[in-house]
Amino acid sequence: MVMDLNADLGEGFGIWRLGDDLALLDLVTSANVACGFHAGDPVTIRRTCAAAVDRGVSIGAQVSYRDLAHFGRREMDVEPEELCAEVLYQLAAVDGIARAMGGRVSYVKPHGALYNRVCRDEEQAAALIDAVADYDPSLPVLTLPVSVVHAIGAAEGVPTVTEAFADRAYTSAGTLVPRREPDAVIHDEGTVVERAVRMAVDGMVTSVEGTAVTVGARSICVHGDTPGAVRLARAVRDGLLEAGVVLQAFT
Amino acid sequence: MVMDLNADLGEGFGIWRLGDDLALLDLVTSANVACGFHAGDPVTIRRTCAAAVDRGVSIGAQVSYRDLAHFGRREMDVEPEELCAEVLYQLAAVDGIARAMGGRVSYVKPHGALYNRVCRDEEQAAALIDAVADYDPSLPVLTLPVSVVHAIGAAEGVPTVTEAFADRAYTSAGTLVPRREPDAVIHDEGTVVERAVRMAVDGMVTSVEGTAVTVGARSICVHGDTPGAVRLARAVRDGLLEAGVVLQAFT
Amino acid sequence: MVMDLNADLGEGFGIWRLGDDLALLDLVTSANVACGFHAGDPVTIRRTCAAAVDRGVSIGAQVSYRDLAHFGRREMDVEPEELCAEVLYQLAAVDGIARAMGGRVSYVKPHGALYNRVCRDEEQAAALIDAVADYDPSLPVLTLPVSVVHAIGAAEGVPTVTEAFADRAYTSAGTLVPRREPDAVIHDEGTVVERAVRMAVDGMVTSVEGTAVTVGARSICVHGDTPGAVRLARAVRDGLLEAGVVLQAFT
Amino acid sequence: MVMDLNADLGEGFGIWRLGDDLALLDLVTSANVACGFHAGDPVTIRRTCAAAVDRGVSIGAQVSYRDLAHFGRREMDVEPEELCAEVLYQLAAVDGIARAMGGRVSYVKPHGALYNRVCRDEEQAAALIDAVADYDPSLPVLTLPVSVVHAIGAAEGVPTVTEAFADRAYTSAGTLVPRREPDAVIHDEGTVVERAVRMAVDGMVTSVEGTAVTVGARSICVHGDTPGAVRLARAVRDGLLEAGVVLQAFT
Repeated sequence: MVMDLNADLGEGFGIWRLGDDLALLDLVTSANVACGFHAGDPVTIRRTCAAAVDRGVSIGAQVSYRDLAHFGRREMDVEPEELCAEVLYQLAAVDGIARAMGGRVSYVKPHGALYNRVCRDEEQAAALIDAVADYDPSLPVLTLPVSVVHAIGAAEGVPTVTEAFADRAYTSAGTLVPRREPDAVIHDEGTVVERAVRMAVDGMVTSVEGTAVTVGARSICVHGDTPGAVRLARAVRDGLLEAGVVLQAFT
Repeated sequence: MVMDLNADLGEGFGIWRLGDDLALLDLVTSANVACGFHAGDPVTIRRTCAAAVDRGVSIGAQVSYRDLAHFGRREMDVEPEELCAEVLYQLAAVDGIARAMGGRVSYVKPHGALYNRVCRDEEQAAALIDAVADYDPSLPVLTLPVSVVHAIGAAEGVPTVTEAFADRAYTSAGTLVPRREPDAVIHDEGTVVERAVRMAVDGMVTSVEGTAVTVGARSICVHGDTPGAVRLARAVRDGLLEAGVVLQAFT
Repeated sequence: MVMDLNADLGEGFGIWRLGDDLALLDLVTSANVACGFHAGDPVTIRRTCAAAVDRGVSIGAQVSYRDLAHFGRREMDVEPEELCAEVLYQLAAVDGIARAMGGRVSYVKPHGALYNRVCRDEEQAAALIDAVADYDPSLPVLTLPVSVVHAIGAAEGVPTVTEAFADRAYTSAGTLVPRREPDAVIHDEGTVVERAVRMAVDGMVTSVEGTAVTVGARSICVHGDTPGAVRLARAVRDGLLEAGVVLQAFT
Repeated sequence: MVMDLNADLGEGFGIWRLGDDLALLDLVTSANVACGFHAGDPVTIRRTCAAAVDRGVSIGAQVSYRDLAHFGRREMDVEPEELCAEVLYQLAAVDGIARAMGGRVSYVKPHGALYNRVCRDEEQAAALIDAVADYDPSLPVLTLPVSVVHAIGAAEGVPTVTEAFADRAYTSAGTLVPRREPDAVIHDEGTVVERAVRMAVDGMVTSVEGTAVTVGARSICVHGDTPGAVRLARAVRDGLLEAGVVLQAFT
């Protein structure tokens, strides 16, 4: 019973901050560091990497569409050659800073609209995988269970890892209930903790239809940028530890 | 008698182009690749690095202030911590792309206003040197002969290399005549070639006062973004070869 | 027989230029001035507006998605409130500069991916029309003949104007043949001129299927950013004048 | 005894927020709305203008260097033509949005490094004044008492207004004690309120040397982006009202 906790970190830009990075770094085992395209200026990247190295937290490159104005949340029809180069640029930049701080990038997680897009768009998924393969094909890519990234990664020799969301409702097909539907997000702390523990111990979650669904996740994603987020992350962490789950980065 | 020819390359952005990169790559031995802060999007960086690797041209990271709107030509009072992180980010991004293309970044050259500033501003020069030292202290930094970068680099264990400008007038103190003064730029092709050859063969140049000035340059910078620039670069190259100078990257 | 010739102008950014603005301004009757979101910095906007005012050329605000890196050529799922505010911002900025130069913005033309999107996406089309209605509902919006913008504009009291493309092939339904298909673009100068004249004189064009299609266009769009573009624009202008067409802005 | 209270507002960007805009809008009489160059996306500008119009708060264009990454806090050597065009662009954009919301821009306040620079740099001050003169020479420019802007504005027919800072220490020459010096900022609420009242009632402030200094300010600037800022602004407002000062925009 081993599980990773990952969170998005370093998502400020210039003067602006988002979330309590240091509090989250004390809770998670993997830090998805924003690379400068949806958030994350060089100083913030450097400080976040240094703080992660200090705490032994694994560093991931949270790559995104180039979209500071919209926080990487709008899908874009970027050409594969361009997307591949943009991912490579971000990955290299953060890895270089992480190495200068005594660590390194150990995995890649797409952000926001790119995360959603690569789960279903083979062209963009291939561009993402190509960038990782070009840079370092041993770096795993973190994504949803139902995603074309897994097959493309397997074909290209790039490992993929599945993550789960303890505070999101699942369909019986194992996909997330879209955010626009009611009850898509679970707010009750006890329920979220209980679901996280079941994901880690049994590899299962109860769907909105009431069926038991397999979630073969090696990592659970926690959020840091909403009120009460750090508290909920801490509750999930404590619940997992109490259930005997070993918290360990997947890398 | 060995000399390097360096030029700024990959200075387009998105749809916009600047200069004839491929023509210049056939002439120079070192390519200062724009890193995305004053020019250079990821696709352009990738193509430029790939073309440089194909031709055996040495790749340098041409780091800049973050200033796409002004092409990195305005001096900025950036805090040392921020400047250091910004240089590190750019250097790492281009090095990662260069490595994915089968090459690597072999040196660092500051661009535009940052180039001028670090020659005289110890704080910013130290921030630049710190970034290189953090990333890879074996990478030389290319700068003017009269520059505080040399002393700071020596103190931090980062090598520095001096470049010269065959088409710029020199004072008897060995500094460049400022562009705003008449005759600061030499336009006559024969004169420029002759000066380049003397720089390479004798290590000297004639100043505006008529005195012979020592220029201990290991590299000569040629330009690519003005009409006739490629032709002048070719003339300088041919003149050096005819004079028996071996053209070779300094790295 | 009255026709307007419009072209995209001021599409440089910072140091980068695109096309020969002054040559085109001597040929067209309407200038679609880039507003800073896909191209166009404030100095370029100001110079372009001043040159248009000098020549009596009508000024339009060429509004775009915020996308300098991709020249506004990628569709984006921007929320209507956001798109409306972004269009309003661009329109106001260019109108203010035009007024300071002695002119004013007389129409609005969406650019690139936004142009294509608003022709079929009612939500984004309504956001565009809302922005114009909020700013000045007397400003016409320039778009394709087959476009939801016309109906939405009519409902909101914002006039719309149709433009045609003399160098593009048409289907018998009156839509443009997509660029990815062969023969989508007509390169023969004589044919382009002949089509422009027929559009102006008869209001018709021959489709790829050989049928005669009605194009009720009040403006013909000419391009300026490709080799030979200015020459082709001049040929179209001369052909129209020789055919007795009066060249006049639609505003 | 009439005084204006002004504050910087709308200084978020995209997802990022800064300060409590609505709380401050209930306290001030003038809102310096960020124009998109150091902060402020179009949606934020629109919402801020709408909220200001709702409350009868005067709207100012808070113009800046183009510097989102550094919040407009670094001085830049921008050419006068460029700075003038950039100011004009920002002023026009925010004025257009304000008008669409039923209000209008009534004054101009430079931000951050531009604010400091134009107080002493005649070239940049003239570029700022030129932009206002080109757009609407009746718009006052808000600046420090000791500033070259006043003389240049007077010469160009652009009115200027002086502001004061109740929480900043003054030298006996009437200038602000630089922030890097100890005691530059006054944190005690009672003292700040007392100084604000004396500024409004007597037009005087006590300098660090203990002398009484004349501050002919028509506006007092309050801050909103620090912890306790809204509380301090409310205390200043209440103190002024209790002292019988009429709070009224200067426009």
